[in-house]
Amino acid sequence: MTTGRVAQASLDVTLSALRAQFGGRLAEGVGVRGQHGNTLSEVPNQPPDAVVFPKTTDEVATIVGLCATNRVPVIAFGVGTSFEGHVNAPYGGISIDTSLMKHVIAVNRDDLDCRVEAGVTREELNQHLRDSGLFFPIDPGANATLGGMAATRASGTNAVRYGTMKDAVLSVTAVLADGRIVITGGRARKSSAGYDLTRLMVGSEGTLGIITEIGLRLWGVPEEISASVCGFADIRSVCDAVIMTIQSGIPVARIEFLDEVQARACNVYSKLDLPETPLLFLEFHGSPASVVEQSERFAEISAEFGGKTIASATRPEERSRLWKARHDAYWAARGLRPDAKGISTDVCVPISRLADCIGETKADGVASGLLAPIIGHVGDGNFHVMPLIDFNDAGEVAAGAAFVDRLVRRAIGFGGTCTGEHGVGQSNMKYLGVEFNAATLGMMATIKRALDPDNIMNPGKIVAP
Amino acid sequence: MTTGRVAQASLDVTLSALRAQFGGRLAEGVGVRGQHGNTLSEVPNQPPDAVVFPKTTDEVATIVGLCATNRVPVIAFGVGTSFEGHVNAPYGGISIDTSLMKHVIAVNRDDLDCRVEAGVTREELNQHLRDSGLFFPIDPGANATLGGMAATRASGTNAVRYGTMKDAVLSVTAVLADGRIVITGGRARKSSAGYDLTRLMVGSEGTLGIITEIGLRLWGVPEEISASVCGFADIRSVCDAVIMTIQSGIPVARIEFLDEVQARACNVYSKLDLPETPLLFLEFHGSPASVVEQSERFAEISAEFGGKTIASATRPEERSRLWKARHDAYWAARGLRPDAKGISTDVCVPISRLADCIGETKADGVASGLLAPIIGHVGDGNFHVMPLIDFNDAGEVAAGAAFVDRLVRRAIGFGGTCTGEHGVGQSNMKYLGVEFNAATLGMMATIKRALDPDNIMNPGKIVAP
Repeated sequence: MTTGRVAQASLDVTLSALRAQFGGRLAEGVGVRGQHGNTLSEVPNQPPDAVVFPKTTDEVATIVGLCATNRVPVIAFGVGTSFEGHVNAPYGGISIDTSLMKHVIAVNRDDLDCRVEAGVTREELNQHLRDSGLFFPIDPGANATLGGMAATRASGTNAVRYGTMKDAVLSVTAVLADGRIVITGGRARKSSAGYDLTRLMVGSEGTLGIITEIGLRLWGVPEEISASVCGFADIRSVCDAVIMTIQSGIPVARIEFLDEVQARACNVYSKLDLPETPLLFLEFHGSPASVVEQSERFAEISAEFGGKTIASATRPEERSRLWKARHDAYWAARGLRPDAKGISTDVCVPISRLADCIGETKADGVASGLLAPIIGHVGDGNFHVMPLIDFNDAGEVAAGAAFVDRLVRRAIGFGGTCTGEHGVGQSNMKYLGVEFNAATLGMMATIKRALDPDNIMNPGKIVAP
Repeated sequence: MTTGRVAQASLDVTLSALRAQFGGRLAEGVGVRGQHGNTLSEVPNQPPDAVVFPKTTDEVATIVGLCATNRVPVIAFGVGTSFEGHVNAPYGGISIDTSLMKHVIAVNRDDLDCRVEAGVTREELNQHLRDSGLFFPIDPGANATLGGMAATRASGTNAVRYGTMKDAVLSVTAVLADGRIVITGGRARKSSAGYDLTRLMVGSEGTLGIITEIGLRLWGVPEEISASVCGFADIRSVCDAVIMTIQSGIPVARIEFLDEVQARACNVYSKLDLPETPLLFLEFHGSPASVVEQSERFAEISAEFGGKTIASATRPEERSRLWKARHDAYWAARGLRPDAKGISTDVCVPISRLADCIGETKADGVASGLLAPIIGHVGDGNFHVMPLIDFNDAGEVAAGAAFVDRLVRRAIGFGGTCTGEHGVGQSNMKYLGVEFNAATLGMMATIKRALDPDNIMNPGKIVAP
């Protein structure tokens, strides 16, 4: 069982077999290995021993089978936009880069579904769909691969309307630890045929198998989209407006929160004059009449809680201008303190507890002397507070770590989760024991051990073997 | 490992311990055992050795712990509305009847969620919610328990809008085969924290653990509901209208198909004068304006495919009258041939293949000399054809069985599934090997063996041990 670096002899045998089969598609240089040993995560670089670029599911099965024989770790790699150290290779091994698996295998317009290889990114899929009247809505911000999004159960700004990868994935093809290929479902919109292996693979982060193809739901491009930005006096009012909006059944497509620190950052970065108060950015999708009704009903609710509409737009270029602040939020936040790095966080709580959780977190940030802007997918209760930390200042690093630890425990205390959409990776492993009881975490470990007895599938992530 | 009837000595020890602890809440009479050894299924009665009525999760854990020690099977029982032999006890053992677990533990209005014990039925939950402005939409027809609905991944008429139990369940509390209690999630609307144990338990039919509590999503009661019935010349036109409706993003709440045989049955049974042609029954939920827009847009689409609106209604009593035919469809179908019994079927296919699949199935029914009315949740591609069979006629029984076998293989051939919403139980086990490749079915068996090494959890269902 893999619990430390792989033995050199096993590695040599594996690499030599891979060289023979993959030739130029096996990369062993320090540069490529380094690129595959880290991501946007704060986890230090942990390079694999080599990177291989398969073109098909069968090639992935060959690689995994070879690694299984020699007990060499395998780590799936998409484009490396994970925040939580998913693609790092703490025990070495082979990084399986899916960037040559770019086929959109099928688009079934009548069924609103498609099948893609794991290396297709969400923007590539939408580009492919551009004349079909269909689109794939899930938008985590980064132009991630659909394999990576499935593996981490990603979501993003419009999960409130379209769900997460848990909802969008109809089935996966995956290579298990013994090199066998599973196909977890057909194309029926629903099924009760046995264990939900699709949902087990979604969010398993390459620790149970490597996803090589994904069947995805698609949606019709909305006839009309309208956008608006609304300012509030305080966070409680924002959250009350969000709760009432959701309760009223307004099918809002996006409802994004920016706190006043983030609003200020956006003004500076994007040269805007937003009020520097808590803000909501909204988007409504539907028929022209429905979009008007949705936005009018939202405006009424918002007004009840003192919200003021700052701007709204339906024409694409105006909507883009309006949403630019939200889209640039990450870089704007970093711009608040260019010498610092942002620590990514991702808690999610029941929306009834959102105002308390954000309020306590902001107070904690002030008390800790940290600059920590907040953006949130508030329709789902998910928010990202990003303390900006000077990593050369040990005191500040410690204060940031303690702040994040309190944040996660606070969210779990409110009935929430340590990660709404980023995944566990390495960074959140220590919180699974806070979020779940021992039996539940033990159930995860039992599944892991049963499906990967030698612990070669992305070892050191999610659960200890 | 349980692969046959439990040893008498083990059973005696178990029963005597259960008698001591549960007294009058342990039933050993032939009558009660018989009631718990069968359901609406065609699978013959297979009674458990005793039925126990726990009141709490801890009591369930005690029962399972005791049975685990003595390797006695445990079978969860809700109200017994399964079609597929889920609650039968082929190897004997203890039936755990959840009918004393009736607490609605919490309703969180602001979060649109609740937590219930497994024995609460969906109608009991909606009764509890009646003044809250919230409702639980999933409606499989029968007034099933929410524990049973979760365990079988049930859905029903409005899955097209509100999803299935896979989508509605936020978390479960469950007792595993070793008696330990897992809680698969908190109350956050989304989470990426580890393996999706919630979805693994949903649809596991008591074979991995016994669900004792369920966290459920709720929805706001729609401001307005409108209903309509629409007649078509043929099945192809119905299916094309359904595809266009879904593609257009009309958020139809129910879109139910009745074939002309079923329409005739409904006319006779409910004394109606529906045209005896393929019909669609529809329901639209939303604001008054949105409901009008939805039904107008549907009428336009329907007209494109020759559909004629027969009736529509918004007032509750009129809607009920309109939908009565659909609600009584099962008994109406049985009434076509009172001496016969209906065989339940539940295939689901991609909606692009629905017209072909229904068409071929109807032709097969005619060629086989069978009377087989069809109803369908066509927005999901799920339909129930129910051959009416005289069980005293061996030739007819054989013809019915062969027809069902061809139906299931046809649906799987079209990319579909043997069961859209009823579950595997015993009846569909033989089709899992048709629907999934050996590695995929092997993955299910690996999970089963890992979590239930002695095969005591509802043995003889879903996968062989």
